[in-house]
Amino acid sequence: MTHSTHSKPAASETGDPFLLTPGPLTTSRTVKAAMVHDWGSRDASFIAINKAVLTRLCEIANGGGDYVTVPMQGSGTFAVEAMLTSFVPPTGKVLVLINGAYGRRAKRILEIAGRETVVHETAEDTPPDLNEVEAILKATPSITHIFTIHCETTSGILNPIVQIGALAAKYRKGYLIDSMSAFGALPLDARALHVDALAASSNKCIEGVPGLGFVVCRRAALGACKGNATTLVLDLHDQWANFEKTGQYRFTPPIHVIVAFHQALEEFTAEGGVAGRGGRYQSNCRILLEGMTALGFKPLLAPHLQAPIIVTFHMMNHPRFIFQDFYDGLKDRGFIIYPGKLTVADSFRIGCIGRLGEKEMRGALAAVREVLQEMGVTDSATRAA
Amino acid sequence: MTHSTHSKPAASETGDPFLLTPGPLTTSRTVKAAMVHDWGSRDASFIAINKAVLTRLCEIANGGGDYVTVPMQGSGTFAVEAMLTSFVPPTGKVLVLINGAYGRRAKRILEIAGRETVVHETAEDTPPDLNEVEAILKATPSITHIFTIHCETTSGILNPIVQIGALAAKYRKGYLIDSMSAFGALPLDARALHVDALAASSNKCIEGVPGLGFVVCRRAALGACKGNATTLVLDLHDQWANFEKTGQYRFTPPIHVIVAFHQALEEFTAEGGVAGRGGRYQSNCRILLEGMTALGFKPLLAPHLQAPIIVTFHMMNHPRFIFQDFYDGLKDRGFIIYPGKLTVADSFRIGCIGRLGEKEMRGALAAVREVLQEMGVTDSATRAA
Repeated sequence: MTHSTHSKPAASETGDPFLLTPGPLTTSRTVKAAMVHDWGSRDASFIAINKAVLTRLCEIANGGGDYVTVPMQGSGTFAVEAMLTSFVPPTGKVLVLINGAYGRRAKRILEIAGRETVVHETAEDTPPDLNEVEAILKATPSITHIFTIHCETTSGILNPIVQIGALAAKYRKGYLIDSMSAFGALPLDARALHVDALAASSNKCIEGVPGLGFVVCRRAALGACKGNATTLVLDLHDQWANFEKTGQYRFTPPIHVIVAFHQALEEFTAEGGVAGRGGRYQSNCRILLEGMTALGFKPLLAPHLQAPIIVTFHMMNHPRFIFQDFYDGLKDRGFIIYPGKLTVADSFRIGCIGRLGEKEMRGALAAVREVLQEMGVTDSATRAA
Repeated sequence: MTHSTHSKPAASETGDPFLLTPGPLTTSRTVKAAMVHDWGSRDASFIAINKAVLTRLCEIANGGGDYVTVPMQGSGTFAVEAMLTSFVPPTGKVLVLINGAYGRRAKRILEIAGRETVVHETAEDTPPDLNEVEAILKATPSITHIFTIHCETTSGILNPIVQIGALAAKYRKGYLIDSMSAFGALPLDARALHVDALAASSNKCIEGVPGLGFVVCRRAALGACKGNATTLVLDLHDQWANFEKTGQYRFTPPIHVIVAFHQALEEFTAEGGVAGRGGRYQSNCRILLEGMTALGFKPLLAPHLQAPIIVTFHMMNHPRFIFQDFYDGLKDRGFIIYPGKLTVADSFRIGCIGRLGEKEMRGALAAVREVLQEMGVTDSATRAA
């Protein structure tokens, strides 16, 4: 197939394709430009920047003085493994709520660490059954923690963290949340939910670059974690203790990533924090859903389950719709989407997060329309015209 | 103390102080500027950049087809912990050669992982006693691996990796090297030494930015590591298997750090590889040693033990020499040095690595002379004049 019908591809401020993925995502020019300097990792100016980052992250989670942010070099999964292996003691038992790849990954992490798990798994388009969760908690008093995913990126589903938190509180269980792709865009009140710890990363809704994870921890719970960890580098208690003592990382931090994250947090605050950022993503998501539906695509999730982060669409059931050509045609036009990862449906995904607004979402929809026409998927293209 | 006598501080191409530290270090403007773009982590252009990085690292270690580079998000210590916990099975026993903080850290990592260790420790200014090492190998046949540090950053000492390798080969032990601060500046022939694995990072002698570690692994040894690891994220075998299958990281990589590392490797090659890079550092080190000696400072190490990476100097024994003022005076002039970490001597350290040459080293020496004069350490300042 040739792409002769389209004009110059769309591009970001720095000339790059737009990333309509669950992250790493399109960031602002100023976030990236903040990295064009060198800092010493033990120097006062860097230490101050890092401290501002940690403080701000705790504020976003409404942590107040009861909570502290412990960063973890690597990626979001490094932060999740650090959280699980530091907070769950060797004698712990975790109720893992699974409805996608990230829930399954948490279970695997716990198994490798030799921590017992009890699983409640639902389909990728289905939230946990809260009655069933409560029945498990009643039946298995040896459970010490509940783990859930805030927005499961596999499908884009929003899990009911408030209701799960109420059960955790009622049955006096520790509460651990992977808030990776939701943090900063969806409200999460750590104090109100009495969360023990929640993990996220630099390269999601705060719109930084990848390389740093972090865990917002309840101080009292973190204080009880000494000696739990199964490694040196992923030991959150040790990482925290060193910050308390010296203000510094134990091991070389990704300095440039952290400085970019600081800039991203400034821009996040300027946009109005969670309300502003989440509002823009909600608008992106609405434009995307309306436009794609008009073009003949069907979303996987019921509207009340759809988080404004990433949308899963069923593959179009049309003899001329070939996903690789669809993906390539969009890429040629400056829009990179994400292939699906679902077991429940043949699907693909389009993200709504990152430095994207109405103009970029409408540009992506125009590109989708063009590519469908070029592929000869005329039914739907006509329907959308 | 006031700093009124000096003029405008020295600064790098991007207006930053020069980092005379063991890294993170001063990098070129072009290395940092490579980060002012966005890439998708699963997109072909990024995958190609990453592959080029991994291939080049293996070449630098003369790995040929027998070796493969497995990257590890985080930092150098993440790569060292991944190497130790992946290569040493639960039934393994490691002879750990210690003469500084990084050797001690490796021992701690092994202990947390439940791996047995046998330690041969020497003072921070003393290489391992090879006769003693051989005696230990003879006396303890259950030892499975030898671990050493190539250049122990604690003092800057060069350890005899070739002779240790000969003992590893003679007694058929696995051989693991932390080459963090030496890789790229000092020759290391992985095939000739029959190394099982060596760990290093992006932000040392290749002059990239921090955020990525890597392990150059002998394929046959790595192939036998399945199931050894104590975590998901630090499992080198699993990380490798996924690259073999998909060319991709299992978990979000620090994309910008990797693209900067790619640019740093291009500049490393243009400088003449290990010979060129190591030659410049040798020259930097010679200028520093001569200049500091002329100013009255004494290096810790005998010349044949001094690697051209970082030099430890004894604190000056003069009533007016106050280290914090010395450090601050140099910082005000655009040169950031590193305080010591030794148990053997009251000392401080000055690095020779990073985007620094004769001009910057002479600039640093001029700043040292000025600060000594300002402090009223006139004996040595006079002696140097």
